[in-house]
Amino acid sequence: MNNSENLIPIFPKGEKASADYFVGNVWIKNLIPADETFHMVIGNVVFEPGARNNWHTHPGGQILIATDGTGYYQQRGSPVQIVRKGDVIIISPGIEHWHGASPNSKFTHIAVNPNVQNGIVDWLQKVTDEEYNNI
Amino acid sequence: MNNSENLIPIFPKGEKASADYFVGNVWIKNLIPADETFHMVIGNVVFEPGARNNWHTHPGGQILIATDGTGYYQQRGSPVQIVRKGDVIIISPGIEHWHGASPNSKFTHIAVNPNVQNGIVDWLQKVTDEEYNNI
Repeated sequence: MNNSENLIPIFPKGEKASADYFVGNVWIKNLIPADETFHMVIGNVVFEPGARNNWHTHPGGQILIATDGTGYYQQRGSPVQIVRKGDVIIISPGIEHWHGASPNSKFTHIAVNPNVQNGIVDWLQKVTDEEYNNI
Repeated sequence: MNNSENLIPIFPKGEKASADYFVGNVWIKNLIPADETFHMVIGNVVFEPGARNNWHTHPGGQILIATDGTGYYQQRGSPVQIVRKGDVIIISPGIEHWHGASPNSKFTHIAVNPNVQNGIVDWLQKVTDEEYNNI
């Protein structure tokens, strides 16, 4: 266990994410569903070491709040960046990106998806090992 | 230190909240500012034991994500409820309410304020000790 990880996770692990859109073991716990007042979906995502989602975009954008462990984040055309507990990432609508755990630490973030009346996510191709390790 | 509290907080403590709107020691760290894409403000709030905010409403509503410790939440006309790490509270626009720590534990939550084009918060009267202890 990495020193940056909480002893007791904030949220239960939730459901295993689909292998269609993720590499490795990822767990998603929905925290709030979309409604007509907030047009927002919030979920908690736990990535096991080395796990990540596919390249994707959010039609309404996304805010990631890193709460535990150490992860990776990359926007298309920019280097992979390390994300640590307490970091907040603002992703504008339509920006192609991926996120996941680093190779030796779990990574947990809260994902806030606003403007879901425009759509939640459009999935693209998998993040290859070459892309993942290019840091 | 309460067993339910993290050893290492996720966010730095931030700025001390104004005594005009809070009883006791409360610390606010802004995580994202309002913009024209998300119309959202997100902040982290740490309440020391016994501390709470005044009664208030949010014109755009609010979502509280409890991340550490044990707190209290009350809507006008309903009993005080205990809020634990991992609980999520959805507060509709215009609902009169307050939140804070329980008497013997710090309490930390992330506050997501959507629809801030309608306003962020309207402050009302202080939560008296009688109201706070009526649990």
